[in-house]
Amino acid sequence: MSTLWKSRYAQRTLGIKSSAIRELLKVTQKPEIISFGGGLPAPDVFPVERFEQACHKVLADHGAMALQYGTTEGYQPLREMIAQNMSRYGIVAKADNVVITAGSQQALDLIGKLLINRGDRILCEAPTYLGALQAFNVYGAQYVSVPVDDDGMLTDQLDANLRTGPKFMYVLPNFQNPAGVTLCEGRRHELILLADKYGIPIIEDDPYGQLRYEGEHIPPLVVLDRENIRRDKAFTVGNVIYLSTFSKTLAPGIRLAWIVAPEDVIVKIVQLKQAADLHTSTFNQYVAYEVDRDGFLDQHVKLIRQVYRERRDTMLQALEEYFPEEVTWTRPKGGLFLWVTMPEGTDSLALFQSALAENVAFVPGDSFYANNGQEGSRHMRLNFSHSNPEQIREGIRRLSLAVKTQLRANHVPR
Amino acid sequence: MSTLWKSRYAQRTLGIKSSAIRELLKVTQKPEIISFGGGLPAPDVFPVERFEQACHKVLADHGAMALQYGTTEGYQPLREMIAQNMSRYGIVAKADNVVITAGSQQALDLIGKLLINRGDRILCEAPTYLGALQAFNVYGAQYVSVPVDDDGMLTDQLDANLRTGPKFMYVLPNFQNPAGVTLCEGRRHELILLADKYGIPIIEDDPYGQLRYEGEHIPPLVVLDRENIRRDKAFTVGNVIYLSTFSKTLAPGIRLAWIVAPEDVIVKIVQLKQAADLHTSTFNQYVAYEVDRDGFLDQHVKLIRQVYRERRDTMLQALEEYFPEEVTWTRPKGGLFLWVTMPEGTDSLALFQSALAENVAFVPGDSFYANNGQEGSRHMRLNFSHSNPEQIREGIRRLSLAVKTQLRANHVPR
Repeated sequence: MSTLWKSRYAQRTLGIKSSAIRELLKVTQKPEIISFGGGLPAPDVFPVERFEQACHKVLADHGAMALQYGTTEGYQPLREMIAQNMSRYGIVAKADNVVITAGSQQALDLIGKLLINRGDRILCEAPTYLGALQAFNVYGAQYVSVPVDDDGMLTDQLDANLRTGPKFMYVLPNFQNPAGVTLCEGRRHELILLADKYGIPIIEDDPYGQLRYEGEHIPPLVVLDRENIRRDKAFTVGNVIYLSTFSKTLAPGIRLAWIVAPEDVIVKIVQLKQAADLHTSTFNQYVAYEVDRDGFLDQHVKLIRQVYRERRDTMLQALEEYFPEEVTWTRPKGGLFLWVTMPEGTDSLALFQSALAENVAFVPGDSFYANNGQEGSRHMRLNFSHSNPEQIREGIRRLSLAVKTQLRANHVPR
Repeated sequence: MSTLWKSRYAQRTLGIKSSAIRELLKVTQKPEIISFGGGLPAPDVFPVERFEQACHKVLADHGAMALQYGTTEGYQPLREMIAQNMSRYGIVAKADNVVITAGSQQALDLIGKLLINRGDRILCEAPTYLGALQAFNVYGAQYVSVPVDDDGMLTDQLDANLRTGPKFMYVLPNFQNPAGVTLCEGRRHELILLADKYGIPIIEDDPYGQLRYEGEHIPPLVVLDRENIRRDKAFTVGNVIYLSTFSKTLAPGIRLAWIVAPEDVIVKIVQLKQAADLHTSTFNQYVAYEVDRDGFLDQHVKLIRQVYRERRDTMLQALEEYFPEEVTWTRPKGGLFLWVTMPEGTDSLALFQSALAENVAFVPGDSFYANNGQEGSRHMRLNFSHSNPEQIREGIRRLSLAVKTQLRANHVPR
């Protein structure tokens, strides 16, 4: 029908396909299905009432400004508040180091636009966040992958990979999506030193950092980078761009996140953002500022931690109870996901089909590997934030039936 | 300082500079300045109360859904409502032909991403919308420009330009930004026929179509294109992608606009949008739907028309009264802008400086020309929607002083 258009598509669109997950998850929206698929926050912890008060106050006090065009950088008081809040985690930033984005996905898109020429290699974890791969793919990225274990990226494999000259490293140090693992402090130091040694910058994506359910907070890469600068004047300033978001602490539906970067990088990102969408919703920025003005989210995050910790524990317990012993999984100290590893030879796409037959869903591991080999096929990502404990137990029970069927199939000689 | 980053910027960023307007307009935010610079709607017509009721209702009835992640295409009831509303203008579209974007700027960015390879030529009007140039520049667009007169693009110059094989045409048929002119019906037919003859599609950008203050509505290009298809089966289906927005009828601060395109093009745009920002704010989409559910904006637009018509008339009258007779201007039948033409040799940047000294601002014409020659230097864009009638009279009086000084300077022999 529209061959006229198709023949005119730009080269960059040729490799872009609908994400397999997207297609899979469409099936999982039936009410009888318990889904561990999406990365959705629990709607029962959205601070709806507080949000409503904030909408009311913003419109009563600043209606004309909040509904008008705004600056590309973002609402100044919100940028200041974010800079202030981050200082508690040791992140040294002024408002001028912060740009507000339409969710972290836009931050990743702008980073890709800013840095990636077609064919550039990006170093990332294997597995890594699917949305980052989607964002970078549009700009023709190639990938170098470094595997993770329970302490995050295997930094002893970094040196050799950095010699191949990747454009930048993309790292999720806290409760990584999809594996749920956390980069330990020792490896964070190694990473920072190697980044400086080879002059290869880091994009630190930290959507879940505040959602820690046990153990001690570990300093972000952007902080360790700065400490190194202080110790050693020869150290390049600002090797790390840091990303975080309101999606997991307030609500994803308002699409508010931010980038922290050196000022001259922010200037360039703002130019690209202006061309991409002029600015992020003024109204949503006023409302988020009003919601969090007196530190509300600090209190609110305690509630989220409590709810998610219980759900994580329920899922871990149910896995222990129902799953066969050849299957293993990560034990995340925070975040939204855990990562299940099945014996070699398991086909997680086939497993997905049998799981659907049992009315339970997850995301097959393949999608999270940059180089799209068979590496991911014995893995699945399970989300524990969205379903309630009862659903989690029942869902894991159902899933265990599918897993057992699949493992039996593995053993049938072909 | 951050040479590490600078050395890593992608090729596409090299030509991107902060828009001159942006820098100029920063100066104009002082309260003593009357600004005809920005393209801002009048804040006094924002339906703040209605908006607040909608926020309340959305959060009370759908809080959990409205704050959650949503689909990339957009909120289904809003897409259906938009399709329904557009049918009154003869635009035949189902919800599946509509994708919600973060303002029309994102629509332009996605169009650029979808269609432009580095070096592709885009045919546009001279002058044309600056934001479109910014969006397309990121993808390495080159331009072919066709001048406008009071009846819009000079379609008798189209044939020769289309032979050079532009990738698509970008056209603002109604109350064009910046010139305020409207493409007459005869030329619309010519445009559609030529687009089909050469197989060159059209992006029709229509942010102001509903804001007509006099004369009869003229069918959009997307409608004429379809009528041609009906008459002549050999006609290619769907030569036009149509863009419109809530920014001028509801409020720009919520960043809600939409693209209308053939279904297979929508599928591709959705893939690109998913990589760019996952989806547009769920909350804002619910609220816009609630605001407009019983046809509120139809009534509200009548108020906007009344207010803006008065402001346009005030500006036209003040220009007549204060401006020297060597200066001419367009008489827009709708929209937000008019376009002033000064005698040859006028330097609108120098004029901008003298205007600032008189505490009045506008946008110099240069910015609106794709090929950035001196074509624009004798023009200025004046916005008449944002200032009230009293400010408009006073602003035009001040501006006339700067203009007269500038014209005298033109006549001084150098």
